[in-house]
Amino acid sequence: MKLTILGCHSATPRWDANPTSQVLDVKGHLFLIDCGEGTQIQLRRFKIKFARIKHIFISHLHGDHFFGLVGLISTFRLLGRKSELHIYGPKGIKEVITLQLKLGDSWTNYPLLFHELDSKVPQLLFEDEKVSVTTIPLKHRVYTNGFLFQEKAGERELNVEKAKALKVEMSYFRKIKQGEDGVSSDGAIVPNAEITIDPPTPKSYAYCSDTEYFPQIIPQITNVTALYHEATFLEKDHHLAIKTKHATAKEAASIAKNAKVDMLILGHYSGRYPGKEEFRKEALQIFENVELAEDGKVFEL
Amino acid sequence: MKLTILGCHSATPRWDANPTSQVLDVKGHLFLIDCGEGTQIQLRRFKIKFARIKHIFISHLHGDHFFGLVGLISTFRLLGRKSELHIYGPKGIKEVITLQLKLGDSWTNYPLLFHELDSKVPQLLFEDEKVSVTTIPLKHRVYTNGFLFQEKAGERELNVEKAKALKVEMSYFRKIKQGEDGVSSDGAIVPNAEITIDPPTPKSYAYCSDTEYFPQIIPQITNVTALYHEATFLEKDHHLAIKTKHATAKEAASIAKNAKVDMLILGHYSGRYPGKEEFRKEALQIFENVELAEDGKVFEL
Repeated sequence: MKLTILGCHSATPRWDANPTSQVLDVKGHLFLIDCGEGTQIQLRRFKIKFARIKHIFISHLHGDHFFGLVGLISTFRLLGRKSELHIYGPKGIKEVITLQLKLGDSWTNYPLLFHELDSKVPQLLFEDEKVSVTTIPLKHRVYTNGFLFQEKAGERELNVEKAKALKVEMSYFRKIKQGEDGVSSDGAIVPNAEITIDPPTPKSYAYCSDTEYFPQIIPQITNVTALYHEATFLEKDHHLAIKTKHATAKEAASIAKNAKVDMLILGHYSGRYPGKEEFRKEALQIFENVELAEDGKVFEL
Repeated sequence: MKLTILGCHSATPRWDANPTSQVLDVKGHLFLIDCGEGTQIQLRRFKIKFARIKHIFISHLHGDHFFGLVGLISTFRLLGRKSELHIYGPKGIKEVITLQLKLGDSWTNYPLLFHELDSKVPQLLFEDEKVSVTTIPLKHRVYTNGFLFQEKAGERELNVEKAKALKVEMSYFRKIKQGEDGVSSDGAIVPNAEITIDPPTPKSYAYCSDTEYFPQIIPQITNVTALYHEATFLEKDHHLAIKTKHATAKEAASIAKNAKVDMLILGHYSGRYPGKEEFRKEALQIFENVELAEDGKVFEL
């Protein structure tokens, strides 16, 4: 899993602070998560191949999370895209995008498929043999979802030398990788555990932005490899977090701690603070492994 | 009149090539013309005071001319704007902007006034005692207007010394500036021309983008101080200009020559060409005073 932050600032875009967008590279997929104004420029800046994006997940319909979507969809058309593009987002997203394409008489020449969301419980949005994507219902001023990206456990790794030493017939290898026991050339059962090793632990990534402090998400995100949690404010401005239904760095850390995640990534910083280090300091008082999102930063999970 | 180019490239935004937007500073007004994605970032980059913008003119509803509008409107809200904002643009612009504000539950807390256009003849959009703005109907794939910005002639300048020498009574000075004759203390009529000089010639600016070669605009833009005319293509790609209803540099120059304008500014370049100098070269074969728009360039007219 490789996470690239395209933008991680709240509210108004500035030349050095892009609104929310990130790409997650996992098992051959390049998932785009949120798409604030200027996202397509950030994709170019960081040399991310547009054509690899086939699924875009929009958390909610505030401008700093989706005003760049229609432009990206239009650019795909100008680049001659042919393959399907799937958009997952709150109900209403289809109307607003198609209205703009209609007004410009600029329909896409590729299939544009909307998956509108209005459920308040987790929903499976995408699944193949290697990865799944599920909504994480959040609590904000408008209907909002986070997204949970989960790798599936791969096949068991065969210890070929040991299998050969135990005279396990090669024709069983495929099923052994899937967890079955082997059979030796003299007919004896060879337990799976003796000739295989565990595959790498599946990675998982939870994206939670925007939301107020909402501990109800903890059971769903427990033990994830990385949690991106919004931290719009510092604790000294807790009243603003309450008012605007955002979270503080301390609250994000509390979620991370209670969900026993491996790593917390903070983002969605308010522009009122001169730097980001205060966010990390505040979170470190509660949780030990805190990273700061920055535009252009890459996290190898 | 001071024209600042915020973006002058066609189609997809790139980090070094912004889609169309420009600001015209004239007689105390700061008019924003078109608003492609990223315009608000360009406004910040070039340190243009957001609050001074009270009128935004949108030529047509292709993304590279208006996808930045909703973000700018939202940013005005976040900045606590109180004063009216007037949006002039094709029918449909109100629906698409208000739908986005509705979906995000982000209504403006300042008056947002739409003036929707569907006329195919020139329309006066704005007028005060110093300046007027009129549509220039253009011909493109969708309904499109250019805009003509015209200063009004100021008062005549009084030659005070000569007026005093001719014993013109001061109480007449105000009316003399407005063109009336004076009267000397001995009752003689003093012709206006003897005691005044012409005020500076009023400036005018015609913005014409996007459009195919459309000589019908010539009577309306004759003698303007500066004409910005789209030149998406070079003449060698004339077939593409025909197909997409855009113009070539040569065609833009032909319009400039026949309209006897003082200066031609080319822009809206296709990304297919490595540089801009070829556009100037081609236009110079037809018309002598050709400038190239560039992001961030300022023209003092």
